[in-house]
Amino acid sequence: MKTGKMAKLYLLVPLIGSFACTPSPRANREVELEALNRAAMEYYAAASAKDRDAVVAFYDPDAVLVPPDAERLEGLEAVHAYRFGFIETEGISLEFQMLHAEVSESGDMGWTLAQGDITIDRGEDPPARDRVRDVHTWHKQVDGSWKIALDVWNSEPVN
Amino acid sequence: MKTGKMAKLYLLVPLIGSFACTPSPRANREVELEALNRAAMEYYAAASAKDRDAVVAFYDPDAVLVPPDAERLEGLEAVHAYRFGFIETEGISLEFQMLHAEVSESGDMGWTLAQGDITIDRGEDPPARDRVRDVHTWHKQVDGSWKIALDVWNSEPVN
Repeated sequence: MKTGKMAKLYLLVPLIGSFACTPSPRANREVELEALNRAAMEYYAAASAKDRDAVVAFYDPDAVLVPPDAERLEGLEAVHAYRFGFIETEGISLEFQMLHAEVSESGDMGWTLAQGDITIDRGEDPPARDRVRDVHTWHKQVDGSWKIALDVWNSEPVN
Repeated sequence: MKTGKMAKLYLLVPLIGSFACTPSPRANREVELEALNRAAMEYYAAASAKDRDAVVAFYDPDAVLVPPDAERLEGLEAVHAYRFGFIETEGISLEFQMLHAEVSESGDMGWTLAQGDITIDRGEDPPARDRVRDVHTWHKQVDGSWKIALDVWNSEPVN
């Protein structure tokens, strides 16, 4: 009878611990990496299509925007008001390529690096070109979607 | 007797689940956020002191460097060979300010945003000034230290 009670106590100790845990972090991470990649590619598709509403919908409520040669912006209102160059620039066309995507073990945070080849054709010969490197950090939202927490980019010269 | 066996089975189900879990992710996250902040501040102290060895020691073996107006670099060898502007530029002095630091729930990934106010004094009057926004993503290493996985920055004009 005494041994039986002890055995039950040993069972209870890990039982209490288990309430604080989430199931299978490894499987979760792979699923979330796929979801993050998909979100990033949808973002760049929206950017290439110059679909402002679709682009803006990808930002976290606390998003930080760090555009080169301009002040840092914070929050969704500022993101909504921001004049994204890839939307506003006349004659611009974009081609993005994902270079890197990573998700934390817990599947709640990630970051991506993409390269954007930009052509600006205003009828000049030849058209102007630029290469942008675009870095996002991402938060998984309560609804399971991935949103951009930080957006920073810069350019590299193109011959 | 039958009820007793059922009760034991109910105890066993969460017991099995608990083996896959890590202890107290929330406490871990706070500790890691402190450690990340410390690492970032040590990095900027090394940068301000122009201590190249100390700066380079903060990079992950797979680090990616995305300097503005220059090609993307990958891996520690490239980082070691890179001529950091804040070390190489004559007459430069730096003052960094941490703006943001975040760690994943699992405490294995993080990102930071800092602002660097740069003065370049070559005896001209007045000295040249620049403001850099510096974004790092970080990996926690096996030894518990935090290293920079991605380093991207750009400038904003200073009046």
